[in-house]
Amino acid sequence: MTHVGILGGGQLARMLALAGVPLGLRFRFLDPAPGCPAAALGEHVCAAYDDPAAITRFIDGLDVVTYEFENVPVATAHHIAEQVLVRPAPMALEVGQDRLAEKKFLRELGVPIADFLPVGSHAALLAAVEDLGLPAVVKTRRHGYDGRGQAALHAAADINAAWSAIGEVPAILESFVPFRRELSLVVARDANGSLAPYPLVENVHHGGILRTTKAPAPDVSADLQQRADGYAALLLDALGYVGVLAIELFELADGSLVINEFAPRVHNTGHWSIEGAQTSQFANHLRAVVGLPLGATTPLGFACMVNLIGTLPDPGALLALPDTHLHLYGKDPRPGRKLGHVTARAASVARRDELCERIQNLVAHH
Amino acid sequence: MTHVGILGGGQLARMLALAGVPLGLRFRFLDPAPGCPAAALGEHVCAAYDDPAAITRFIDGLDVVTYEFENVPVATAHHIAEQVLVRPAPMALEVGQDRLAEKKFLRELGVPIADFLPVGSHAALLAAVEDLGLPAVVKTRRHGYDGRGQAALHAAADINAAWSAIGEVPAILESFVPFRRELSLVVARDANGSLAPYPLVENVHHGGILRTTKAPAPDVSADLQQRADGYAALLLDALGYVGVLAIELFELADGSLVINEFAPRVHNTGHWSIEGAQTSQFANHLRAVVGLPLGATTPLGFACMVNLIGTLPDPGALLALPDTHLHLYGKDPRPGRKLGHVTARAASVARRDELCERIQNLVAHH
Repeated sequence: MTHVGILGGGQLARMLALAGVPLGLRFRFLDPAPGCPAAALGEHVCAAYDDPAAITRFIDGLDVVTYEFENVPVATAHHIAEQVLVRPAPMALEVGQDRLAEKKFLRELGVPIADFLPVGSHAALLAAVEDLGLPAVVKTRRHGYDGRGQAALHAAADINAAWSAIGEVPAILESFVPFRRELSLVVARDANGSLAPYPLVENVHHGGILRTTKAPAPDVSADLQQRADGYAALLLDALGYVGVLAIELFELADGSLVINEFAPRVHNTGHWSIEGAQTSQFANHLRAVVGLPLGATTPLGFACMVNLIGTLPDPGALLALPDTHLHLYGKDPRPGRKLGHVTARAASVARRDELCERIQNLVAHH
Repeated sequence: MTHVGILGGGQLARMLALAGVPLGLRFRFLDPAPGCPAAALGEHVCAAYDDPAAITRFIDGLDVVTYEFENVPVATAHHIAEQVLVRPAPMALEVGQDRLAEKKFLRELGVPIADFLPVGSHAALLAAVEDLGLPAVVKTRRHGYDGRGQAALHAAADINAAWSAIGEVPAILESFVPFRRELSLVVARDANGSLAPYPLVENVHHGGILRTTKAPAPDVSADLQQRADGYAALLLDALGYVGVLAIELFELADGSLVINEFAPRVHNTGHWSIEGAQTSQFANHLRAVVGLPLGATTPLGFACMVNLIGTLPDPGALLALPDTHLHLYGKDPRPGRKLGHVTARAASVARRDELCERIQNLVAHH
């Protein structure tokens, strides 16, 4: 039986384990949080990511290590990779956890990205605003997620507050992209280099946190999907990537795509695939990581995914909706915290959109 | 968080837990086998089903108890039911684990069953053969599964061997039903009495062990499905049943149905529903048991399920087949043992049947 270690024990690790147990895999998680969401599904090494003794215990007997969390210290990933197979290789972490490295990497690949400049100081931020113009967004190089570590700049008067809001740490300034909508592409790559992209999905964020995904995204031409797949192929091949990776993209009014960022892991915008695709992102990540063939990423009808954030609505009301599936993460409610998600699957776009609205109404009222 | 206890920790409990964790449920299993398939997904009380101290530990803090195994001692179920909600109620166990009680119960409901006679001795068996005629099948009243505890009688010369083969224990003699095919109906009933029947499926057994299920069964008229649903409604209402129950049926050449037996639990012939139905039998059993609304049982295209028995084929070869899903139970290989199953889902009957054959070829060759 293959023994898989996961760096991080949050909801992504939990859903990986739920997909991996039927494949005969056993799991061990390294996570500093007692009672983390994945703990019920395997062995939990409860320790900091840079605790050498804990890492030794964590890797003992593992066949492969992967991660659900891209802010694992790169030194930890490299240290583990000297002793056990790590998939995806630590290079993806290294690039993915530093926005400046990520942007440079994407620019070198020749994929479309927003203009950006590194910003190491208040003076540098002033100079960068001068160079790029406004509106723009300042983003910390490290540890940004769910909208944290970002501040929008609409006018020169915003500069001081933005610099203070991000904590005056190393950052980048990025030109604001006047997007028509936010899309994302989840894609799996196996150790032989075979790619399995999911259909493009459309995402809505509020307050920097993902609220809703529609899968497939409405009105995606074959050309649009192919361009996105092409960018993904460049990126995953360059990283020698094995596993699932997510790319967030902006679609502009003229139909062109701009890559915002990527996450070297399974992704919130791929959760719909548990019910909505032939093979879920979680199953495909594990298939890639343990050397099994990838499964089809074809959608099963039309799905939507709504995040449950901060508080939990009545599960009975949600599950009384037709073809609605509930995924709770076992976390205590706290403002802004992702506590679970709801997926609905329908045979038509109209029906999907109707179900999505009904779910959002239940979620919004609680 | 609702805490669910399951009597039995085999693959059915494992798949219940995999369906229940996303609903926010926590699990505890009572099973005498160390390292039983469900143990990785919750707390395992490793003890005999009639160990009073273990039962006390098992039920402590549980919100509801259910079972994956119908041969739990009825006394245990009654004892537990005095202290915590048990769903389905122990009456279903009581009837379901004694073939004679089951047959009498079905006869009183007025649903079609084969002629039968109780057989308590060799002399009674001779008399019953005289009465019912041959061919017939002698079946032990208790503890029969996967073809064990059964012997076919084609001629009077078979009687002695059959009586000896079943261990000379209390039994029934049943007229042989000249069936055209074996069907089954999995159906969920919630605490309000709402019924959610899955489509009839077609099953193939070899050596008394289920090999393949096709879901939905080919060539099922609306009338046939309605008759089966009607029998199920009679049975479940009479039992005041809450949860999922499976009914095995024979279809005769003239299209009539004969009920063979029922199992008061999720069932091997419902495993296809994990990928093949809007809501799986496991999710619906738990929804019923914890008081959530039932989910739709509509099939998603056409599915087949092939059991992995005795030995495991190469998982890579299986998963290289299009839209094929592997479910391993974490059990050591042993002849005749159910080690896992494979499900394929297709958009047409022809494609489903082709995939089914390809899976069977891989399974048969190992």
